[in-house]
Amino acid sequence: MLNISAKGKSMPESPIRKLVPFAENAKAKGVKVHHLNIGQPDIETPAVALNAVKNFKDEVIVYSHSAGNISLRRKLTDYYKSVNIDLDPEEIIVGAGASEALLFAFQSIMDPEDEVIIPEPFYANYNGFAKNAGINVTPIFSSIETGFALPPIEEFEKNITDKTKAILVCNPNNPTGYLYSKEELEILRDIVKKHNLFLIADEVYREFTYDGKVHYSAMYLEGIEDNVILIDSVSKRYSACGARIGWMASKNKELMATALKFAQARLSPPSFGQIAAEAAVDTPDEYFVNVKKEYLARRNAVVEGINKIEGAYCPNPSGAFYVVAKLPIDDSDRFCKWLLDDFNYNNETVMLAPATGFYSSPGRGKDEVRISYVLKVDDLNSSVKVLDEALKVYPGRK
Amino acid sequence: MLNISAKGKSMPESPIRKLVPFAENAKAKGVKVHHLNIGQPDIETPAVALNAVKNFKDEVIVYSHSAGNISLRRKLTDYYKSVNIDLDPEEIIVGAGASEALLFAFQSIMDPEDEVIIPEPFYANYNGFAKNAGINVTPIFSSIETGFALPPIEEFEKNITDKTKAILVCNPNNPTGYLYSKEELEILRDIVKKHNLFLIADEVYREFTYDGKVHYSAMYLEGIEDNVILIDSVSKRYSACGARIGWMASKNKELMATALKFAQARLSPPSFGQIAAEAAVDTPDEYFVNVKKEYLARRNAVVEGINKIEGAYCPNPSGAFYVVAKLPIDDSDRFCKWLLDDFNYNNETVMLAPATGFYSSPGRGKDEVRISYVLKVDDLNSSVKVLDEALKVYPGRK
Repeated sequence: MLNISAKGKSMPESPIRKLVPFAENAKAKGVKVHHLNIGQPDIETPAVALNAVKNFKDEVIVYSHSAGNISLRRKLTDYYKSVNIDLDPEEIIVGAGASEALLFAFQSIMDPEDEVIIPEPFYANYNGFAKNAGINVTPIFSSIETGFALPPIEEFEKNITDKTKAILVCNPNNPTGYLYSKEELEILRDIVKKHNLFLIADEVYREFTYDGKVHYSAMYLEGIEDNVILIDSVSKRYSACGARIGWMASKNKELMATALKFAQARLSPPSFGQIAAEAAVDTPDEYFVNVKKEYLARRNAVVEGINKIEGAYCPNPSGAFYVVAKLPIDDSDRFCKWLLDDFNYNNETVMLAPATGFYSSPGRGKDEVRISYVLKVDDLNSSVKVLDEALKVYPGRK
Repeated sequence: MLNISAKGKSMPESPIRKLVPFAENAKAKGVKVHHLNIGQPDIETPAVALNAVKNFKDEVIVYSHSAGNISLRRKLTDYYKSVNIDLDPEEIIVGAGASEALLFAFQSIMDPEDEVIIPEPFYANYNGFAKNAGINVTPIFSSIETGFALPPIEEFEKNITDKTKAILVCNPNNPTGYLYSKEELEILRDIVKKHNLFLIADEVYREFTYDGKVHYSAMYLEGIEDNVILIDSVSKRYSACGARIGWMASKNKELMATALKFAQARLSPPSFGQIAAEAAVDTPDEYFVNVKKEYLARRNAVVEGINKIEGAYCPNPSGAFYVVAKLPIDDSDRFCKWLLDDFNYNNETVMLAPATGFYSSPGRGKDEVRISYVLKVDDLNSSVKVLDEALKVYPGRK
């Protein structure tokens, strides 16, 4: 028998992808499916980014520097300067998306069987990267009752072992939309300082904050400059997911030298995406003003709509473009499949992400779903209506 | 102390990169450095590929399918049909370069401590991918005396253990340029069949064959359809290294389902690169006729030139755009550094890759260098002259 690796067999499958065939069946039956399940924004990529690629003048598509074009990294330091973060180009390594950058970070600081603490619910693909690197995720429960605020410090303390090498937070959070406060970041600073841990801050949604709240970066924390690893990306900020340009940034020289070796082994990040990313930094401010206005309206439509549904509850988070809502249901996997397979309202239905996929503790998230508000307000209103009607007749209603 | 992983510490550094600072010093002193050290072709990317990207019409750069756009994968199957290889789009997973595709393959079939057998000298980054996946490379010696032909079957047999899961060959070969024959491929077929191993065939240089010889793909081998994993790329074929588009292909459904999980965890391959790659398949045949004519002239210039140098020997390989030459020197690392640091002829010198970096057995390659013939014939002739003069005065000459 030809060997398939144990690692491969244990790689998690996306909880959302399992539903894709059911969505396709629904569409084949003529039902309109509102996709609230994905993180692919419908917002246009800034014209400056697209034009830069269209104006490509070179005659050969050559390898770039393994850490990314120096011109791109310089431009990124300009961006960071504008948000009061001081970084040098050598403190940035560009990857094929934040995905690859995070994998470089994981592999540079953790060996197989080492542990990273992550508040759950968390971005499901963190599991894949952890499995890929052979490391273990220790989840710490954050609750919908507190709007998914940072779990108490004691929860971290009691889960730190001699295998623990890092704490990872996504801020603003995918899937919860929660925006961690300065005070919460300072709690994390104290923990990582005390225990000599890395603090990995996934800030790919950093520009998406609402209600007058301002993002507080882990890069602002004083006294732990060597501990902080920033993960960032153009995917969401400039609606350029397919460019596959993300990066890791850190002031820790030994870490960066190590990560660069992983980057060199795979030669270089994508050239066209880097051109788009570099130009995107010049996106006019109006773009973000408009985008944030649009997302705010969408968030309000979703949060207000869901909270009007009997038995449903949705916190009102201040960041990203996701919410996790609690629904009166027995099993979110069953419910999300049922929505596609057995239900429609005026020939419409919705595709949601069962929250179970965002918890690593078994049994959690069974009465929760993640909703991405990446559709126009009218479609979101229709989606909420569909959800309301669905919950009236769902056989597994609690 | 903050933890740096043992894996990171042991990641190999490229043998070529170590020389980069010396090349920069030489240039700073006004010396012209001929770069024979890299695999970045100077050939123009086909216009059809560049134009496809410049004509990008979408308003959003979206994620593609995790396995790559279906239109790209269909187009690749058309290409394979033209060389008598029958593949379905589902038998292809596109990666960010052949680098990522090979890593998917390694991780899908091997767990940490498993072994892959590779004839040495071999492409140095295989070491990085192996380290990344936690697996071990078992090198089998191929000799410059035979032009780097496939080592005898006994060498494979005696190195197969219960940890061995695959044999990897690069054909045509980087760094040797050797083109494996049908008979050699059939020997590999028999070994992998007998021992239930995967045969990973890195065929990224498949179009670069000379002297009327035709590439014999591992995909042609009968009776081991489930064992063969093809690694391929647009980087060299269409001089599009920066597009970062490569792929793995296999008829083994269980393998492909496993590899897809790794692909899904990192979301998708680069969108612009896929557009360039898809269009590149329509590159007119004249392009290759001209490119191959050019490379043939270059190979002849290098091989003939080196064989005229006293004490030097270079086989005349029929593929890719590399040769490994034997020189009358004590230590190729020392010699290549000396060329940059202490020598010039009429204010010119050459940057070569010490062959030590392509052997994993310690001590091998000390009197060998890899030469990439990616420069124009005139520059190659000048380079050979520089090398000839250098060997007359090199203090470590044997």
